[in-house]
Amino acid sequence: MEPIKNLSRLSRTLGYGFSNIDLLKQALTHRSASNKHNERLEFLGDAILQVVISDALYHQFPKVTEGDLSRMRSTLVKGETLTEIAKEFNLGDYLFLGPGELKSGGFRRESILADAVEAVIGAMYLDADIDTCRKLLLNWYKKRLQEIKPGVNQKDPKTLLQEHLQGFKKPLPEYQVVNVQGEAHNQTFTVECRVQELDGAVTGIASSRRKAEQLAAAQVLEKIKS
Amino acid sequence: MEPIKNLSRLSRTLGYGFSNIDLLKQALTHRSASNKHNERLEFLGDAILQVVISDALYHQFPKVTEGDLSRMRSTLVKGETLTEIAKEFNLGDYLFLGPGELKSGGFRRESILADAVEAVIGAMYLDADIDTCRKLLLNWYKKRLQEIKPGVNQKDPKTLLQEHLQGFKKPLPEYQVVNVQGEAHNQTFTVECRVQELDGAVTGIASSRRKAEQLAAAQVLEKIKS
Repeated sequence: MEPIKNLSRLSRTLGYGFSNIDLLKQALTHRSASNKHNERLEFLGDAILQVVISDALYHQFPKVTEGDLSRMRSTLVKGETLTEIAKEFNLGDYLFLGPGELKSGGFRRESILADAVEAVIGAMYLDADIDTCRKLLLNWYKKRLQEIKPGVNQKDPKTLLQEHLQGFKKPLPEYQVVNVQGEAHNQTFTVECRVQELDGAVTGIASSRRKAEQLAAAQVLEKIKS
Repeated sequence: MEPIKNLSRLSRTLGYGFSNIDLLKQALTHRSASNKHNERLEFLGDAILQVVISDALYHQFPKVTEGDLSRMRSTLVKGETLTEIAKEFNLGDYLFLGPGELKSGGFRRESILADAVEAVIGAMYLDADIDTCRKLLLNWYKKRLQEIKPGVNQKDPKTLLQEHLQGFKKPLPEYQVVNVQGEAHNQTFTVECRVQELDGAVTGIASSRRKAEQLAAAQVLEKIKS
């Protein structure tokens, strides 16, 4: 039997009471649990979050370049940040997962949480409108928006590595996917990163090719700077 | 002397009369022409376009998977599509470009046009609101939204190549940036793509690494399928 989830308690934590509670339920439902899962809502929520954060940053930083705005936006909407938000809401306690996923941990679990946050945003948008979403999201992101700053800290490891190498007129790093494991929705990517300065490759493993590249780049940066 | 641009004629073509015509002017101003250029507006417009198209596709295709929705969205918001839209509006006639950019052609020119479309969307959003943008964009995209279909046609060449190789249990293609030329905002990337079935590498050259990879993948696909 499925455990009883207290969705009205979750609504209070989120700061939004759903007219149609089924939308919230769907947003919390992983594809492993039901055909009526949250992936389409996630598609919608991702775009809502992007536009709300873009607008907020645009007005908060009237003098900052597009590059810095983009980097700040990436920081605020990336999976790790969404996972943090999910944990602040104890979203994991409310997820509907199939038996295989109930036990999953590590970045698999983290990415399910991050996806659910986007899906909840999509559900709120459908239940209300974009202005309601905006107010809620600005509240969820209040502290993060207060703390974020333009500048070098926002750059991702691949960008930093590339800039570091270009600064020394070295060739660009080479990334190569050397292994992909698992089925379509639960894959693990192994990426090797090679630079002229290091013998052999440095490996990054993550749930997407992009993340694996970033992990590999971060390690290469540490090695060549140490 | 700068040629006179008939911005009210452009407003009529776009279907929107700006209260603040300076916003439209800024949206048309490339960074080579002035410090008050269009890159921040482009940042904003990109997010607006994404959310409007996401919402439209979500409702137009109630049964379609998130993957197909994402592919259709990519098709509708990608640079090539934006360049087409720019050409429909003769946006090139209204751009403010620096002397170096006036003569540029090829994909450099195309990407300036695509960016300007996003910046115009950002300017409309600031001048009005998201609902006004939505109505206009749905009008701009009317025919494209009528014609778009979920399914295999929306897949990009890299995805198609990967699926083709996986179907034959072959190793994944390898992409490698072999050359980057030009300055920060005007770079040309040369990417090599290698697959087990072909001797030697196939080269793609474009204004971004991602586009160069797609071009290379498309050529590899043609070669191995022919």
